[in-house]
Amino acid sequence: MIDAAPAIPAARYGERLAAAQRLIQADGLAGALIGVGADLEYLAGYRALPLERLTILVIPASGPIRLVCPRLEAPGALSCPVVQGSAVEVIPWDETDRPAALVADLLADGGRRPGQGTRVGISERLWAMHVLALQAELPGAALQSATGVLRALRMIKDAGEIEILRAAARAADRVVEQIARGRLVGRTEHDVSREVRERLLAEGHGTAEFAIVASGPNSASPHHEASDRVIQAGEPIVLDIGGLLGGYASDTTRTLWVTGGDPDRGPDAAYLRIFGLVREAQARATAAVAPGVTCERIDAVAREVITAGGEGAQFIHRVGHGIGLETHEEPYLVSGNPEPLRQGMAFSVEPGIYHDGRWGSRIEDIVVCGPSGPDVLNGSSRDLWIVDG
Amino acid sequence: MIDAAPAIPAARYGERLAAAQRLIQADGLAGALIGVGADLEYLAGYRALPLERLTILVIPASGPIRLVCPRLEAPGALSCPVVQGSAVEVIPWDETDRPAALVADLLADGGRRPGQGTRVGISERLWAMHVLALQAELPGAALQSATGVLRALRMIKDAGEIEILRAAARAADRVVEQIARGRLVGRTEHDVSREVRERLLAEGHGTAEFAIVASGPNSASPHHEASDRVIQAGEPIVLDIGGLLGGYASDTTRTLWVTGGDPDRGPDAAYLRIFGLVREAQARATAAVAPGVTCERIDAVAREVITAGGEGAQFIHRVGHGIGLETHEEPYLVSGNPEPLRQGMAFSVEPGIYHDGRWGSRIEDIVVCGPSGPDVLNGSSRDLWIVDG
Repeated sequence: MIDAAPAIPAARYGERLAAAQRLIQADGLAGALIGVGADLEYLAGYRALPLERLTILVIPASGPIRLVCPRLEAPGALSCPVVQGSAVEVIPWDETDRPAALVADLLADGGRRPGQGTRVGISERLWAMHVLALQAELPGAALQSATGVLRALRMIKDAGEIEILRAAARAADRVVEQIARGRLVGRTEHDVSREVRERLLAEGHGTAEFAIVASGPNSASPHHEASDRVIQAGEPIVLDIGGLLGGYASDTTRTLWVTGGDPDRGPDAAYLRIFGLVREAQARATAAVAPGVTCERIDAVAREVITAGGEGAQFIHRVGHGIGLETHEEPYLVSGNPEPLRQGMAFSVEPGIYHDGRWGSRIEDIVVCGPSGPDVLNGSSRDLWIVDG
Repeated sequence: MIDAAPAIPAARYGERLAAAQRLIQADGLAGALIGVGADLEYLAGYRALPLERLTILVIPASGPIRLVCPRLEAPGALSCPVVQGSAVEVIPWDETDRPAALVADLLADGGRRPGQGTRVGISERLWAMHVLALQAELPGAALQSATGVLRALRMIKDAGEIEILRAAARAADRVVEQIARGRLVGRTEHDVSREVRERLLAEGHGTAEFAIVASGPNSASPHHEASDRVIQAGEPIVLDIGGLLGGYASDTTRTLWVTGGDPDRGPDAAYLRIFGLVREAQARATAAVAPGVTCERIDAVAREVITAGGEGAQFIHRVGHGIGLETHEEPYLVSGNPEPLRQGMAFSVEPGIYHDGRWGSRIEDIVVCGPSGPDVLNGSSRDLWIVDG
């Protein structure tokens, strides 16, 4: 079953771009240069692969906004919402042009490129090769991250974005359920991981971004991907999967315990104890979500539960990350981040406990900060999934 | 059917790293900083997702080489071939550390970070956020692309790499054949594109990177991806597909003509003429491949055929790009690139003709420069595939 992904209305892109230009001007930047990636997709509705050929949205502090792209990408650029809506003009360059020089000229105010003492924002994921080429054309200007101005826009999801995130979360939930119902024992993690990717696509994802299948001792590594290890009866599997649906990211984690159908191969008390701590930490941190509560406080709520259970040193990562067009984006729910949550922020809540060489556990939901509490987008059970496998 | 991908022997990574350090020293660089991506995979056998959390291989001009990574990525980093082979030490950092400062300290020679007048190489795909953070910690040093030194290594594929590229090419060939045999008329490009991605995975690819399905007038856009356009009988489809198998990229293009089973809906003379030019240009450019022939010459051979046919202005892109761990890498087969081909270079040969609003055609193979001529990795027919669809 494939969900028709809800889409962002075309007019929203023009509004976002106008808001971005206002923020750029207010911040005193000479302009911002937005390369291929989520910032460009957010502002222009233009989704493209990052390439060695420069594509960049040039937003001066005032004046016309242009999308510079290689000529052979021009048809795609011309069909993106902000160009169709006439807010942006496409400037194609040819195979033997120097696009960085063209970009620097487009930032010029009254014929002069931004020079000494000026600051120019660049998107955070722009490749080093492009950063170096732009610096060479703008020797006096200081390049800085454009996220300082864009984060205020991208962090707050509107109702349309939340519905796409919800559709993505529900599709990922169905994949977890399908995997949990299928055979697991005797298969390699790689094989199960490939099945996860295929099922994410079948459930409407445009791309499957990751499919972590961490079985037995591998479950003790939070970012283990998948290996040739053969799954055994009597061990846990951490499934952490996600992709992009309608351009927005899914990301959910559930912990399974595979018995192989043998009632004697269920989880022992030690595992149930650490799982119970993770379960409680995840539930309490989620319940704490509300406007005005700080990002670091959500992390602390989860950490207090796990620390009280004597496992604080085994919870070796932050509790969560923002999510939207990117799987990891602002805000980060980490110690030291005093950013208050606001309505419309979307992020993961995913505590875990990891015992190196033995096993681990993690539970992850995507949560939106609602007007007075959490709106949890995932809907599958957060219990330990004890399956025959 | 899934090919077991051939693998790079672990000892090769230590050899590559030693060669890279020699080149860094010979070039006068203070060191090189290699972020997540193909350069890191090539040198260390460490494949990881690029993240906002910095992972970087620190190669000073002399002395120990270290892999700096977030603590939660350490298990993966510790299991990569060069770390297992003891050539590299892993230095993990914690969630509240400043990793760029740590990296700058690791580059220090006798306690002093590289300063004024020094040059430090960085990998080309490192994200801007990391480039800016490293520049802030190395204010006197000039950052420059590390590709200047690494290209000499990565451009020349050894026999093991060529066999993986061949396995990837053959897997992509099978997907083209499967798609050509199936139903096409009445389906959307998106639907066929999703099937391509699923089949790439089923044929052993770890990831499906792109699945261009450009039907009818969309075939006139070289980098059209896929749309909701419904495929009709009596029109061409350009299929350009690829992914990563065993870490190495596949990339092949074939042009289909869909008749819908109606003999009156075959290609007309105008289309057969442009297809014939593309076919001949592709064959001649491939045949011209040999050590010592320049990259720009291969482009020129294809362009001469198409220009002689009066279609030069419609061949709007270079004839090819290098391929290996990345779909696009050096060498680029483009006008103005005098680089001579050498044995072991692998690249696409992919001329095309595009008539905006009407239709287009492209044929693409991956070709390795052999000791005296081309070694063509793809094996499917280069004719116009006239299919019922």
